[in-house]
Amino acid sequence: MRISPLIDRLVESLQTMPGVGPKTATRTALHLLQYNREGARALATALTDAAEHVRRCRTCRTLTESDQCAICANPRRDSNSLCVVESPADIIAIEQTAGFSGRYFVLHGRLSPIDGIGPDELGLTELPARVRDMGAKEVILATNPTVEGEATAHYIKESLRGSAVEVTRIAHGVPLGGELEYIDGGTIAHAMQGRRSVD
Amino acid sequence: MRISPLIDRLVESLQTMPGVGPKTATRTALHLLQYNREGARALATALTDAAEHVRRCRTCRTLTESDQCAICANPRRDSNSLCVVESPADIIAIEQTAGFSGRYFVLHGRLSPIDGIGPDELGLTELPARVRDMGAKEVILATNPTVEGEATAHYIKESLRGSAVEVTRIAHGVPLGGELEYIDGGTIAHAMQGRRSVD
Repeated sequence: MRISPLIDRLVESLQTMPGVGPKTATRTALHLLQYNREGARALATALTDAAEHVRRCRTCRTLTESDQCAICANPRRDSNSLCVVESPADIIAIEQTAGFSGRYFVLHGRLSPIDGIGPDELGLTELPARVRDMGAKEVILATNPTVEGEATAHYIKESLRGSAVEVTRIAHGVPLGGELEYIDGGTIAHAMQGRRSVD
Repeated sequence: MRISPLIDRLVESLQTMPGVGPKTATRTALHLLQYNREGARALATALTDAAEHVRRCRTCRTLTESDQCAICANPRRDSNSLCVVESPADIIAIEQTAGFSGRYFVLHGRLSPIDGIGPDELGLTELPARVRDMGAKEVILATNPTVEGEATAHYIKESLRGSAVEVTRIAHGVPLGGELEYIDGGTIAHAMQGRRSVD
């Protein structure tokens, strides 16, 4: 419903955030205006500053306001392996496991000719040079197991053919804690195909 | 996890919104920066403008950037009844039912001596004059059925004793579609107490 022009505009703007509909937006707007105007002002500044200054790391293409992101600038990261991901959120997910100490390359999408997204848009033309420059021994393809993610992984593998680097793909199968009974056929088929000897 | 100072600050600021934790905040920040910077800038402006200009309606105390809110300024609203609510969100909830055409009075809270919230903070000292000025015949108490909401309703009833106005309380009982079997005892007790003859 209409409240007042400025509040209505705030409610509408809040809905640009993913997963926020009219109800949540209204509740949020009233909450901020009733109890936390300082918070609202701080959020406005944070949004403006980030929208203004955040760009892509010149080395790995993730989002950062510096010339190079913290991971690329860290000399202690292992330069032997490069992990290719679709988005900056994937880096966060992998970093939280603390199981990977190599470097990253962010595509910001996946190959999707219908949407006009080709190798250029994903920085794939820069990738072979990046692999060569850092002297990587392994490129880990961590694109998502969707049709487009698989096609992207396949394209990258082909584009690195002829270089000495080993190209691997992360495993897809039954997630930990998952029960076979409830898992979709595609995942089970992947898990069967990807089976390994248990010696 | 830390991403970059500006993105981290945005993630933190997004968490001032109710119900937004670190995960949602991170996803939202990356989404806005990757796909919708214009949306982020528009949201920043909307937040700043609203935080700057929205204040309380001088008549009913709801949030608006005008001197008077749209409902108070509407000459077609019924001046015979005044509905007292705890928050602007309650007005929205009631307006959406389209079942009430009277006017409102917003407390912005409920009596809570422990938190230092007394009659002055809730505008209750202005309420009798407001009731008199508009010539209301009925004051509907729509505070929430909590201990403090009930205490506030009781206080208002007492403060209007002696004026000619009728003071009523909205009904509390079994919600539509609710099944007795699953409803808490307090609500059922209210529903029994509030029973009415079915002639």
